[in-house]
Amino acid sequence: MATHPVKEDAIKPGHIIRRKQNGDLEYLHDDLTVEEPLEIRIGRKTVATTMRTPGSDEELAAGFLVSEGIIQASEQIANFSRPAGARNQDNIIITTLAEGTKVILNSARRFGTISSSCGICGKESIGAIRQNFPVIKSEKDIRIDVKTLFLLPSALREGQSDFARTGGIHAAGIFGFDGRARTVREDIGRHNAVDKVIGCAFLNRELPLTRCILLVSGRASLEIMQKALSAGTPIVASVSAPSTLAMEFARECNQTLIGFLRPPSFNIYSHAERIILD
Amino acid sequence: MATHPVKEDAIKPGHIIRRKQNGDLEYLHDDLTVEEPLEIRIGRKTVATTMRTPGSDEELAAGFLVSEGIIQASEQIANFSRPAGARNQDNIIITTLAEGTKVILNSARRFGTISSSCGICGKESIGAIRQNFPVIKSEKDIRIDVKTLFLLPSALREGQSDFARTGGIHAAGIFGFDGRARTVREDIGRHNAVDKVIGCAFLNRELPLTRCILLVSGRASLEIMQKALSAGTPIVASVSAPSTLAMEFARECNQTLIGFLRPPSFNIYSHAERIILD
Repeated sequence: MATHPVKEDAIKPGHIIRRKQNGDLEYLHDDLTVEEPLEIRIGRKTVATTMRTPGSDEELAAGFLVSEGIIQASEQIANFSRPAGARNQDNIIITTLAEGTKVILNSARRFGTISSSCGICGKESIGAIRQNFPVIKSEKDIRIDVKTLFLLPSALREGQSDFARTGGIHAAGIFGFDGRARTVREDIGRHNAVDKVIGCAFLNRELPLTRCILLVSGRASLEIMQKALSAGTPIVASVSAPSTLAMEFARECNQTLIGFLRPPSFNIYSHAERIILD
Repeated sequence: MATHPVKEDAIKPGHIIRRKQNGDLEYLHDDLTVEEPLEIRIGRKTVATTMRTPGSDEELAAGFLVSEGIIQASEQIANFSRPAGARNQDNIIITTLAEGTKVILNSARRFGTISSSCGICGKESIGAIRQNFPVIKSEKDIRIDVKTLFLLPSALREGQSDFARTGGIHAAGIFGFDGRARTVREDIGRHNAVDKVIGCAFLNRELPLTRCILLVSGRASLEIMQKALSAGTPIVASVSAPSTLAMEFARECNQTLIGFLRPPSFNIYSHAERIILD
């Protein structure tokens, strides 16, 4: 037990104090989710800077460029590189476009800005996003069974390496209609985790993900739905709540939106015809 | 019980389908957290657009301008208004500066960009933020008792009007050292909820909040710590995990950072001398 108050130098570098349930104190090694900036460039131009958890940076950059509507096909990217000799080169990624590829870079573009700055009302935002990406097609055989849906949350957790350790990281996963995880990625930012899984599929030339489900550990906002649409994902599930705009977007773009996926219960917010209930 | 699959028009506008634990289906009125864009202007210039939950827009705008280091004193703001006659005027807020007030608007500035784009490594980001705001002073009597700390999570929940209803909204609260809530605000965005409580204090001329604690319902990232520092808050608590940069920032800026505040246990990441343990 500590005397009160704790001494000013009680926390050594690299350590934290944990007060246990019984009131005892432990001095633990800190084991936190890493947060560092990543500057995404196309050639010499900075497109965006985001606070991310390092790892899968190429996937993150690719997923960002796809979901912002800047890049459409993997052939448009020649390669990714780091600035040679630069300080902090691990926090900068340079996208080199294939010869002849031209992209439109709106200077106002930042993370999420297609959704947040193109319209000054939610409905206009939805309209603007819809101009960038095709809506999901209605195909009668694009359906999943509720039993498959119930497999996803535990499959997402199994695919996470960092969560159990840090308790403070978001996850996104792409799953097939058999419930198997194709890709799971983690990041301190919800949107970054989604960019990583979409970027992974994009770099493997697997887009559009017409027979896949995107599951996110956090809430489903408009931005998440936008990213799912950019990848052609017909079904999006969240273990938490969606927003009003996410639901409206899903309804307009023919996406199935599942919320509060906590087996055996869940909510369906749009296009329930893709869910085979028992 | 539904036949399988659900009919294509199963979800009426304004309704969702809920699968209950026993497999039965309910058709419920949807009651989601509202997400709409807010464009923050200074005069005719757009400073930022953020996806927010409507309500307390003046506080949100004020808190954003303070925490981005654009505005320092409430005297600098003459008033807030809406663009007369504009479509979607509820989603635009115009800040009119007091006569003689000049502000520096970096065109790269967007939400969180002091923290995310000013440096290409976390340590540089911390340094850049520190130039904008004074670090917290060490004063021997700025301390809270662990019993007070334990009151905060339930006090935050009691101050939330929307969470119980929607289950999908973040909250931030400013509490006195007696554990009483001074302000609690909710928003779909973590950072917006913090901007609202800081903006409220700013508009009431209560900054700096030298004898207050900021409690957030979500994770504590660098951006949250930056906002707390801009308001002069010496203690920040989160019911969830902090990031590495949040911890480093707190240590450098003399802020006490508490994580996983789930009474009777919690973690102390920095400056434990402000916590009186039993």
